[in-house]
Amino acid sequence: MSGDARDRPAEGRPQDRPDEREARLTLRDAQAAVDAWIGRFEEGYWPPLSILARLTEEVGELARELNHRYGPKPKKPDEPEQDLALELADILFVLVAIANEQGVDLDDAFARVLEKYEVRDADRWTPGHES
Amino acid sequence: MSGDARDRPAEGRPQDRPDEREARLTLRDAQAAVDAWIGRFEEGYWPPLSILARLTEEVGELARELNHRYGPKPKKPDEPEQDLALELADILFVLVAIANEQGVDLDDAFARVLEKYEVRDADRWTPGHES
Amino acid sequence: MSGDARDRPAEGRPQDRPDEREARLTLRDAQAAVDAWIGRFEEGYWPPLSILARLTEEVGELARELNHRYGPKPKKPDEPEQDLALELADILFVLVAIANEQGVDLDDAFARVLEKYEVRDADRWTPGHES
Amino acid sequence: MSGDARDRPAEGRPQDRPDEREARLTLRDAQAAVDAWIGRFEEGYWPPLSILARLTEEVGELARELNHRYGPKPKKPDEPEQDLALELADILFVLVAIANEQGVDLDDAFARVLEKYEVRDADRWTPGHES
Repeated sequence: MSGDARDRPAEGRPQDRPDEREARLTLRDAQAAVDAWIGRFEEGYWPPLSILARLTEEVGELARELNHRYGPKPKKPDEPEQDLALELADILFVLVAIANEQGVDLDDAFARVLEKYEVRDADRWTPGHES
Repeated sequence: MSGDARDRPAEGRPQDRPDEREARLTLRDAQAAVDAWIGRFEEGYWPPLSILARLTEEVGELARELNHRYGPKPKKPDEPEQDLALELADILFVLVAIANEQGVDLDDAFARVLEKYEVRDADRWTPGHES
Repeated sequence: MSGDARDRPAEGRPQDRPDEREARLTLRDAQAAVDAWIGRFEEGYWPPLSILARLTEEVGELARELNHRYGPKPKKPDEPEQDLALELADILFVLVAIANEQGVDLDDAFARVLEKYEVRDADRWTPGHES
Repeated sequence: MSGDARDRPAEGRPQDRPDEREARLTLRDAQAAVDAWIGRFEEGYWPPLSILARLTEEVGELARELNHRYGPKPKKPDEPEQDLALELADILFVLVAIANEQGVDLDDAFARVLEKYEVRDADRWTPGHES
């Protein structure tokens, strides 16, 4: 399953549907979009522990979805695939809101996480046979 | 707090440090980067409920950090700001891995979430007095 | 709030309603009750990562409730108090199921946690002036 | 696995070790014990969203343990069994603290959850051949 699954996002998505948006969203665009949306409301960002509670709630909804699909009692075989995508994007939205409220640049932080993983797993990596 | 906080990411970050990377990471770049990293390992993506457990773990670590900062017993006033950024990026990494494993395009899903919020909150929005 | 709140459970509950059940539920009774319920189903206990996903889901529901009550946008001022009690008991049910599936005796484990806290916080405790 | 596992807690535990405590802990005892412990500290119970963050953190620690044991990369084959028991009891402790702070009687709430499950699953239950 994994082998196929991980090719999907990279795969010919643009062909599947007309590519209406010229430029793809960067992490900074995502942060700006959430900021613009929240900027509409007088109260602004929720306090940190409230946004965290919201993140916990959204992760719980994802857990329910995944458990329905991969747990011992798959109850909703006919539920649309897009629901899971929305659950994931809901989590991303809240995650971005926390980053914004905390003044964190996700583009920078994500680059540092990738570096961390490179270093940590460098010795685990069995290079291919290019030589 | 929120007012200031939400300006930070948009704020003069580029001035703070030389902008070494020309193009900012898109959500699709993030998905491709995670896919490349996981592609190194024979086992590939973890099963869905295992990646979910990992997400739960990472959210728990964020909860600890935020509780230390905003809960009743702030224990680590001197802990570096960057830790929280890494916690958030760790969550993003796992979230992206779930999306990849499930064949979800986050760019598309995030756009749909923004649309959902637009519609849902359209009537709550009090437009400014630009006219 | 806390001062009052923490007295409530110990408080005159028995007066509030006739005490229909003679003996109060022990942790072992709770484990046996969950085991009896699950024993009805052929499939028995869910695999560990599935029950964990269920726990994550239930904690998410509690998060939603608490955020509604204590977050910046309390939306349901009229929702019955008992819902929160059921959310907590749902979490307890799943927690007990995990303990059962893992062969953990919660009575014993809880006693060890209390000991751990006693030791850990012994020096923080400022005894009263009973002398 | 499940079949064996679910018998363990009910099984001859008392024989395994001398039964030092005469009366087993009831849920009300657990609530009183947590209340007594927290009552030592001037600040009393944490605010609801802080205790919730703590619950999220503890559930994250359980997720890490279970993923190590049942996920694709079991890293700690030699880690003692008791750690998982303590993780579960840590969650129970925080859950009880939330119940206390909210004035919820877990004994009562748990009984109501059991009733809820009885009703909900009454039609799913295939009774044995006693008749």
